[in-house]
Amino acid sequence: MNYQRFFEEAIDQVHAERRYRVFADLERIAGSFPRAIWRANGQEQEITVWCSNDYLGMGQHPAVIAAFQETAGRMGSGAGGTRNISGTNHPLVELEKELADLHGKEAALVFTSGFVSNEASISTIARLLPNCLVLSDELNHASMIEGVRRSGAEKKIFRHNDVAHLESLLQAAGRERAKLIVFESVYSMDGDIAPIERIVELAEKYNAMTYIDEVHAVGMYGPRGGGITEREGLADRIDIIEGTLAKAFGTLGGYITGSSAVVDAVRSYAPGFIFTTALPPAIAAAAAVSIRHLKQSQAERDAQQRQAARTKDILAAAGLPVMPSATHIVPVLVGDPELCKMATDRLLGVHGIYIQPINYPTVPRGTERLRITPTPFHSNALIETLRDALVETWDALGISYGATGRPAVAKSERIIPLLVPKSGG
Amino acid sequence: MNYQRFFEEAIDQVHAERRYRVFADLERIAGSFPRAIWRANGQEQEITVWCSNDYLGMGQHPAVIAAFQETAGRMGSGAGGTRNISGTNHPLVELEKELADLHGKEAALVFTSGFVSNEASISTIARLLPNCLVLSDELNHASMIEGVRRSGAEKKIFRHNDVAHLESLLQAAGRERAKLIVFESVYSMDGDIAPIERIVELAEKYNAMTYIDEVHAVGMYGPRGGGITEREGLADRIDIIEGTLAKAFGTLGGYITGSSAVVDAVRSYAPGFIFTTALPPAIAAAAAVSIRHLKQSQAERDAQQRQAARTKDILAAAGLPVMPSATHIVPVLVGDPELCKMATDRLLGVHGIYIQPINYPTVPRGTERLRITPTPFHSNALIETLRDALVETWDALGISYGATGRPAVAKSERIIPLLVPKSGG
Repeated sequence: MNYQRFFEEAIDQVHAERRYRVFADLERIAGSFPRAIWRANGQEQEITVWCSNDYLGMGQHPAVIAAFQETAGRMGSGAGGTRNISGTNHPLVELEKELADLHGKEAALVFTSGFVSNEASISTIARLLPNCLVLSDELNHASMIEGVRRSGAEKKIFRHNDVAHLESLLQAAGRERAKLIVFESVYSMDGDIAPIERIVELAEKYNAMTYIDEVHAVGMYGPRGGGITEREGLADRIDIIEGTLAKAFGTLGGYITGSSAVVDAVRSYAPGFIFTTALPPAIAAAAAVSIRHLKQSQAERDAQQRQAARTKDILAAAGLPVMPSATHIVPVLVGDPELCKMATDRLLGVHGIYIQPINYPTVPRGTERLRITPTPFHSNALIETLRDALVETWDALGISYGATGRPAVAKSERIIPLLVPKSGG
Repeated sequence: MNYQRFFEEAIDQVHAERRYRVFADLERIAGSFPRAIWRANGQEQEITVWCSNDYLGMGQHPAVIAAFQETAGRMGSGAGGTRNISGTNHPLVELEKELADLHGKEAALVFTSGFVSNEASISTIARLLPNCLVLSDELNHASMIEGVRRSGAEKKIFRHNDVAHLESLLQAAGRERAKLIVFESVYSMDGDIAPIERIVELAEKYNAMTYIDEVHAVGMYGPRGGGITEREGLADRIDIIEGTLAKAFGTLGGYITGSSAVVDAVRSYAPGFIFTTALPPAIAAAAAVSIRHLKQSQAERDAQQRQAARTKDILAAAGLPVMPSATHIVPVLVGDPELCKMATDRLLGVHGIYIQPINYPTVPRGTERLRITPTPFHSNALIETLRDALVETWDALGISYGATGRPAVAKSERIIPLLVPKSGG
């Protein structure tokens, strides 16, 4: 065994499959989001980020940054230990209260990432429950899949958002067997929403527990930012609501909320929670300020929905193949992995627009796409610049405009209607 | 299946096994470390933390806090995405260069925690290597055990630090089979050190890869804080060196360093790395400042070793059962889980001294202990206060002083020698 050669070949394999990732070296500019400095080949260039998951720009909110700085000045840069061994800091205790309140649950537990929160919580719950059957949506995130795998529990995959398929699996398992349904509210690559109410009804009918991932919804949907489950008045009928602090709330970390008993069981049994350093107090304090702000302020949600709708309409009016999406996520179909990569390289190099290509295995082959995430800070002017850059890129690379084709109108003639906010907050 | 009752019973079980953990709600005071405010039952009390893993107090270092605050002000509170999708920030790129340099390796990769770095890296390396046999020290950390388990590779446990046992397992596997030896440099509960040179010799003899966890050593050992492998001149003979930013470096996150090929393979294949939000730029910048400082400054290492040696000697001189330790970690034997918990409750409630009880399963039954971690900021006066509090607690609870028993001298008569720094930095 030649280890060095082996790992070199493993990397060659990634290259051969066109899956090799080169990370863009970015320096976000607080106060000028979504602008950032991009460094490559010893050069610096100011660019616009169009694929950030800092969905509401809260990562640059003055009150959030102030809490971050003030708490670091007062309590230092790290937590200094695991939750159990000297690492539980007061801002973290307050943050967990804030999160339990956000979702109307008895308790919350914070993890260092959303990935860990899913992996540790799902694996612990499904492992503790005797002979548990996990029912998992086929498009669930990698962190949920890892959690199910690590639980060692039997797993049945149901077709994406297919409640009839889910019901047949629940029926076959019977009421008595322990069952855990794991699914997401907003699926981040298509921007579609799960039929939560029907899944909840099935869970009640067949006595299954429900675990929902709201990472692409918290902060952004519901009158207080409690996610789709809040918007649809279903939070109290879901057992565990999982979310993140690293997207709309603009900081770092993940969490679960639920009954005291379930949360305490995860707290007490999950190695991925127990044996890891706690989040720094500055992060916890900043996250709590962000959550509190979004509980009271609708302005960010309105502006995000308005600019996302505007982006969809303006790109569609230019004939670009905008894929259907019920949310703030704007997927634009390319349909070929090479072209997808070439398009994003051109957008960055020629137009100073940063969007990551989304290729297989993240999405099915043939549906390779750009995934665009407009925020409240993507102005009308930026949207128009984006449209022009996409049209130039589509033309230059010969990417298909889809069935409708490119409208035969000059840029200046296009009429862009001013849009009203969409539903959802 | 009554889910609510089931989880309540799972918690009852933890209580029955005396493993239920109540987290102490602490507010560290930057500039006054190791002092902190402890909140319980609506009361606040200032206490001394004696079990922090902020081993050198770098979490309150003015330059580290300044970098943290300055970077947050300039770049915001979060990274805004995964490493691949808009989350790679410039301070993180710089931090990885700093870490590769620290260990004299080609490349480094940062994770959101040391737990994730072990789990993701070990599982990925052992899963990629065909028919890999993992050889794992029996006292390895939970994160390494999870990594091995998740790899799906065959695993053989070798007795703690037992190179003869390790050699017999390597011999049985033969030179041709892919083999990965995973072990730690400093074992954190006993404070003992692995026979790294002999393990490296065996790895070379039998053509095995080596993966060492230096989380309890980086920053603290070696002339630049590169850990025990640096101190012993062995870093270049180890394939992967793993470390943390959350202990001696005072911030958050974990990392691996190694050849470009291995690091790139983990970067490209590990779901726990790929699908998670990057560390915030402020954390990365603060960690880099901390590492750079400790590359050049020996003062913190000297002071830590001096105060740790002093603590051991003063406690031993008082007849307290200090367990042998080759490092900065000072374990004091209690030998009973109930007494251990009672001792720490009394230390906190009566003496304002916070130390966590270390009970089974973290350590073997009968070796329940206090794990004390003196830092440069634990002054001579604090050490004497600790001794007095421990003696009072040992007497009040009737805990055994061990074979030697308590010396029959009054407190004022005890002569405490001033100690010279120990080896290791």
